[in-house]
Amino acid sequence: MESLIPSDPDYESRVHASAVQQQVLTALGARLTLVRPGEVHLEAPYDARLTQQDGFLHAGIVTALIDSACGYAAYSLMPSGSRVLSVEFKVNLLSPARGDRFRAEGRVIKPGRTLTVCEGKLFSIEKGKQTLCAIMQATMICIKE
Amino acid sequence: MESLIPSDPDYESRVHASAVQQQVLTALGARLTLVRPGEVHLEAPYDARLTQQDGFLHAGIVTALIDSACGYAAYSLMPSGSRVLSVEFKVNLLSPARGDRFRAEGRVIKPGRTLTVCEGKLFSIEKGKQTLCAIMQATMICIKE
Amino acid sequence: MESLIPSDPDYESRVHASAVQQQVLTALGARLTLVRPGEVHLEAPYDARLTQQDGFLHAGIVTALIDSACGYAAYSLMPSGSRVLSVEFKVNLLSPARGDRFRAEGRVIKPGRTLTVCEGKLFSIEKGKQTLCAIMQATMICIKE
Amino acid sequence: MESLIPSDPDYESRVHASAVQQQVLTALGARLTLVRPGEVHLEAPYDARLTQQDGFLHAGIVTALIDSACGYAAYSLMPSGSRVLSVEFKVNLLSPARGDRFRAEGRVIKPGRTLTVCEGKLFSIEKGKQTLCAIMQATMICIKE
Repeated sequence: MESLIPSDPDYESRVHASAVQQQVLTALGARLTLVRPGEVHLEAPYDARLTQQDGFLHAGIVTALIDSACGYAAYSLMPSGSRVLSVEFKVNLLSPARGDRFRAEGRVIKPGRTLTVCEGKLFSIEKGKQTLCAIMQATMICIKE
Repeated sequence: MESLIPSDPDYESRVHASAVQQQVLTALGARLTLVRPGEVHLEAPYDARLTQQDGFLHAGIVTALIDSACGYAAYSLMPSGSRVLSVEFKVNLLSPARGDRFRAEGRVIKPGRTLTVCEGKLFSIEKGKQTLCAIMQATMICIKE
Repeated sequence: MESLIPSDPDYESRVHASAVQQQVLTALGARLTLVRPGEVHLEAPYDARLTQQDGFLHAGIVTALIDSACGYAAYSLMPSGSRVLSVEFKVNLLSPARGDRFRAEGRVIKPGRTLTVCEGKLFSIEKGKQTLCAIMQATMICIKE
Repeated sequence: MESLIPSDPDYESRVHASAVQQQVLTALGARLTLVRPGEVHLEAPYDARLTQQDGFLHAGIVTALIDSACGYAAYSLMPSGSRVLSVEFKVNLLSPARGDRFRAEGRVIKPGRTLTVCEGKLFSIEKGKQTLCAIMQATMICIKE
């Protein structure tokens, strides 16, 4: 593994400050539960309003959670004063996203000055049992102001 | 192009009936605007509660709209009594998803008994001008009850 | 569609000059058959040495052809003195890649100063009948020397 | 992790027998170096005939190696008498594929009766130092004869 050393010592507060501005996280009831250099987790409860026709969390909502975790994982390694945007991602849905709550994990696989490649996972948690529901492979871009 | 002939003459009402059960469409304010064999469009308004840190519609919400359009495009060709699930998708984000409203378009590229491959697009519409914001390549699966 | 105007009037000879240096095209028997701003086609014969266990062209070889077409489609719009590299791509395999020969088509969907997003297709051609075998969604990057 | 128990006790010889029939592996100089339930590695030397314009292994050849590793990882868990085909894959290219030789690793993330989801990696090996060059997320399908 590449060593993942943040260029900005204040990466953690910068990630939290950005998450506060991300309205969709409030709509999803999501909150950051881990912020490390190159790795961010967030959790959200099951919400019946965000489901598809079978009562599972909709694939787009699953994506929103993993994409946010991956975006912040990338952002944790970006310099102060930069912004992060998703370039693209690919998601495989492995198991129905049902359960009490969900944990999205984003990890940087390859940091870069412009592009950062991440892997993400979504776990459902039901009565303490966790199941891998989806995996993501994503590219993030650093925008310098 | 393959000819896209629905096996179920009632495909249109079947698609609408499924969309009604998809809670997330209500949460996103989305409604079906076109249902044809192998092609489905849906529209949703801009909603500041569903945005990322820059005020653009979040990539996961963009994905939710395109994935639903693709899923229903595939479902329009599936037999009566079947269900549709997303296997996987890949999204490229081309332009910031800002605007008054959004139109997601899903089209079947290759129908199949088990797997159906679709292409999707999201357009933003701002003061009548439309911009391609995102494209999707997706695989859907037909589940027989 | 965005208008696709090449910044380099000599884009065509630049694309051809790069293709000559791409050794794998010789190994695949591939040659450029169309070079337009934002669109490049190439063709290659069936080659039993490049097949998977069922005698179809291997998915990696299919990818090599489409990726090259997409890369050159992007490169046709890049400035003189730049290089192109593939950032990522996603391929759906729709039909077995069998036939007499194959045509890969690459098209720019969204050009950009740094990143260019392309769509690609591979058709098999057998006794004059053409079949869509695979589709690609790809991101290319422009490297300035 | 799911436990990955092969349904066919002869999975190893079945994988090797299929690889022998895959002509492209010979063309790439590739050979299987590890076959375990749900995990297959293969190695190939650098070959200047398979490079892109900068002398790196072409992205399609990189894909051929990883896709084969993933396909056989999936196939190791499939029943006797079945075949495996790639449905789709997505590749991120992380570092130029240069070096003395390459090792592709394929792992099953989620096995299934019909669809199996895999992750793959390609490492370059140069003077004993190995570098992660590319990652894949792939869907394989089991075809029953």
